[in-house]
Amino acid sequence: MNDTSDVDLQTSAQDIRTVLERHRLLENLARQQPTEKAGLLESLQHRQNLVELERRLAVLHPADVAHLLDSLPAEDRRLVWTQLSPGLAGQALVEVSVEVRDALVAETPRERLLALLRELDADDLRYLADSVPPDVVAEVASALDQTDRRWLEQVQAYEEDSAARLMMQDELSLRDAFTVGDAIALIRQRGSLPAQTDRLFVVDSRNVLIGAVGLGVLLVADGSSPVTRVMDASVRSFRPSDQASTVAKAFERYDLLSAPVVDDRGKLVGRVTADAVVDFIRTSSANEALALAGLRKAEDVFAPAVDSARNRWPWLAVNLATAFVASRVIGAFEHAIHQLVALATLMPIVASIGGNTGNQTVALVVRGIAVDQIRPGAEWHLLRKELTVSLLNGAVWGTLVGAFATAVYHSLPLGLVMAAAVLLNLVIAAVVGVVVPIALSRLDRDPAQGSSVVLTFVTDSMGFFLFLGLASAFLVGG
Amino acid sequence: MNDTSDVDLQTSAQDIRTVLERHRLLENLARQQPTEKAGLLESLQHRQNLVELERRLAVLHPADVAHLLDSLPAEDRRLVWTQLSPGLAGQALVEVSVEVRDALVAETPRERLLALLRELDADDLRYLADSVPPDVVAEVASALDQTDRRWLEQVQAYEEDSAARLMMQDELSLRDAFTVGDAIALIRQRGSLPAQTDRLFVVDSRNVLIGAVGLGVLLVADGSSPVTRVMDASVRSFRPSDQASTVAKAFERYDLLSAPVVDDRGKLVGRVTADAVVDFIRTSSANEALALAGLRKAEDVFAPAVDSARNRWPWLAVNLATAFVASRVIGAFEHAIHQLVALATLMPIVASIGGNTGNQTVALVVRGIAVDQIRPGAEWHLLRKELTVSLLNGAVWGTLVGAFATAVYHSLPLGLVMAAAVLLNLVIAAVVGVVVPIALSRLDRDPAQGSSVVLTFVTDSMGFFLFLGLASAFLVGG
Repeated sequence: MNDTSDVDLQTSAQDIRTVLERHRLLENLARQQPTEKAGLLESLQHRQNLVELERRLAVLHPADVAHLLDSLPAEDRRLVWTQLSPGLAGQALVEVSVEVRDALVAETPRERLLALLRELDADDLRYLADSVPPDVVAEVASALDQTDRRWLEQVQAYEEDSAARLMMQDELSLRDAFTVGDAIALIRQRGSLPAQTDRLFVVDSRNVLIGAVGLGVLLVADGSSPVTRVMDASVRSFRPSDQASTVAKAFERYDLLSAPVVDDRGKLVGRVTADAVVDFIRTSSANEALALAGLRKAEDVFAPAVDSARNRWPWLAVNLATAFVASRVIGAFEHAIHQLVALATLMPIVASIGGNTGNQTVALVVRGIAVDQIRPGAEWHLLRKELTVSLLNGAVWGTLVGAFATAVYHSLPLGLVMAAAVLLNLVIAAVVGVVVPIALSRLDRDPAQGSSVVLTFVTDSMGFFLFLGLASAFLVGG
Repeated sequence: MNDTSDVDLQTSAQDIRTVLERHRLLENLARQQPTEKAGLLESLQHRQNLVELERRLAVLHPADVAHLLDSLPAEDRRLVWTQLSPGLAGQALVEVSVEVRDALVAETPRERLLALLRELDADDLRYLADSVPPDVVAEVASALDQTDRRWLEQVQAYEEDSAARLMMQDELSLRDAFTVGDAIALIRQRGSLPAQTDRLFVVDSRNVLIGAVGLGVLLVADGSSPVTRVMDASVRSFRPSDQASTVAKAFERYDLLSAPVVDDRGKLVGRVTADAVVDFIRTSSANEALALAGLRKAEDVFAPAVDSARNRWPWLAVNLATAFVASRVIGAFEHAIHQLVALATLMPIVASIGGNTGNQTVALVVRGIAVDQIRPGAEWHLLRKELTVSLLNGAVWGTLVGAFATAVYHSLPLGLVMAAAVLLNLVIAAVVGVVVPIALSRLDRDPAQGSSVVLTFVTDSMGFFLFLGLASAFLVGG
């Protein structure tokens, strides 16, 4: 990068890390030599060090401060956080990841929290409102003017995954009676455009959205033309209650930089800009990946261990319950295993390959649902295809696994049973891998959350059941 | 949405699906009643049907055509594809997902491919160049003017994940000698701004980037001011060889809508806009999730089964090899299992809970690396934390699993061995879950690709080894 280049940024972040290192060293020293004189000297160094830290932090972009907070272990993060000015701390709080934000808010004294929230505008305050205790938000909001306060309340009433939560106040709309010259005069009077503005929305006397004018059009058009003549009258707009994911897909599909949000009567209530959409896409993709791995939500990588453990328990509990069931399936065949111990050695292979192939299917189907690629009516094509893949895979891997079993235990019948069990388990994995995510999504549940657990349950239990059942029938005496 | 509303869009997509349905029906009929007269009537209906399809497709936005192609099963997709005009087909090809694009290009006759590529500008042609046979690209490129041809060659020389691949030609930059009035006159002369423009870049006489002017500034500033006085001189710029992910992170962090790309000497070579970044983020997040599930790349959900199977084989092969090893670990303890069959029943639980907790760690660490949250120096904090979590989890789940074993087999020693094996396997899972993704990323490998496989290998093998080893030592006679 050019001016505030990547190298510069890394250097200043590195400098801050060095200061933090020194700070820790001084603290350790102070703890080891608690004599009065040494203590005085060190406390002086200590204070100088903190001043340096504060100075270095003050020149950073809030987004860089936020990234620093995101990537520092808990202790260092706390130190940096307390050295920030309220203005910078407030901005940084807007930019950090949700998990770190929650952690920081929890450990910030109420007075300081109030101070830094007071530095923010209504949009940023609204954005933080979910992470801050309601009484603190209320106290800060009481100092806002009436418009801002009503805006805050209105938006907050919508659900977390709604378009409303992506929008900002539209600070500058044009009236239908304006000429291009009037519009330019209005912008001049205001002195600048709101951030992230690529076009201005046009409303009628009742504030109903009727079009949009690109800034380029204002620059090019004749000053005396009415804005209604140069505007684009077919604007994609959204409702506050629309799903945020619908908005994101539209931005992606139609290459939008901004879009208006209108209420039931078509009145302009706010605008969504590309930066909010980028954040949303990044966060929701991350959550999808984490949900597939059995995590309820994103986690601050430096969170206290107890919090982390709790985030991971729900799915582990479900997984464990399914493992108990799979174990009981094996238990039903203890007689067979006692007669032929090789079965115990080989059975995990059948379960494992079923789980792996099935999870590939789950990941593809979850993704297909997320990008709207799997529409009603297409499921049968998908199922047929995945069944074909599983038969193909079953033939290839079943043969391989059967050959392995035959070679190790010098028994062709054992190899054949093994091959058959693998083939059948792969077919079951394909069906479950297609059906479960689609069913969850039809029931308005998150397919990423749970599909993998159900799949592993089925492929484990059925893997053991098929292999041990076939072996009981064909290999060992009743 | 307002004008081209979501409802409208779904309706027109639904209409097209109905036409396709009818088409299939007619084809089936024709196959069943091959009499001359009926055939004539049907072929007439058939042709009318195709005309209707063509008409309905022609009014769609290219992005909506692309989405239709993405979400149609192979046969319907082919029919829609052949009914598109070259102009619409070219635009749609730019918008479809890579997997579907590759499939479409493969089945399009060379002549038609040439025709539709000729409809595209140099930027779009460049974007498609990776999916189209080089000789076809060369033939289309030969018709471009020299500037466009050189642009195409230059960009194509950079790697696939480079910033260069995100950029477009900068069609409108301002000279440092310009006044604001000159700038506006230049835009007027051009008639409009390039798409996705929020600001214009300012260059000196040697085309070296020296700043950027927002469109709002042009609207507000005095016409006689030099652009150098009103411009922002500290612009974040990128090199063509920068990683695309670096660019995406900067857009996300600093809420950019556009950014300039400059060469080693600071000369402006192109610009990156938010829409390209949105596509990049969506695609790379998806690939990360798929890689974690053991897929080499995204897959057309309606691809031929053989292609799909091949995409899934590499990791399945590795998984199977590890399953064989785990199986041999069990094989080493066949003597113990023969003496105490309960071991065979319980051992998958130890492996399974190790795999599940470890994969949660892997998913979090892979994510942390992707968003740059895990920096050199922070690994020890992370490892310490994950070890604490694993001890906590080990105590909780180990006790539970031990209680289960004790209850089912009325043996406290068996329960204790089980609990110890779970605790130890969780500790190992934590270490592997942290170390492997970080090590892969240090070696410049993709941590999402492979971490999960290594983890499952270790937790399976060690789960069996720990449990059966402890049982051999304490429960069964030598």
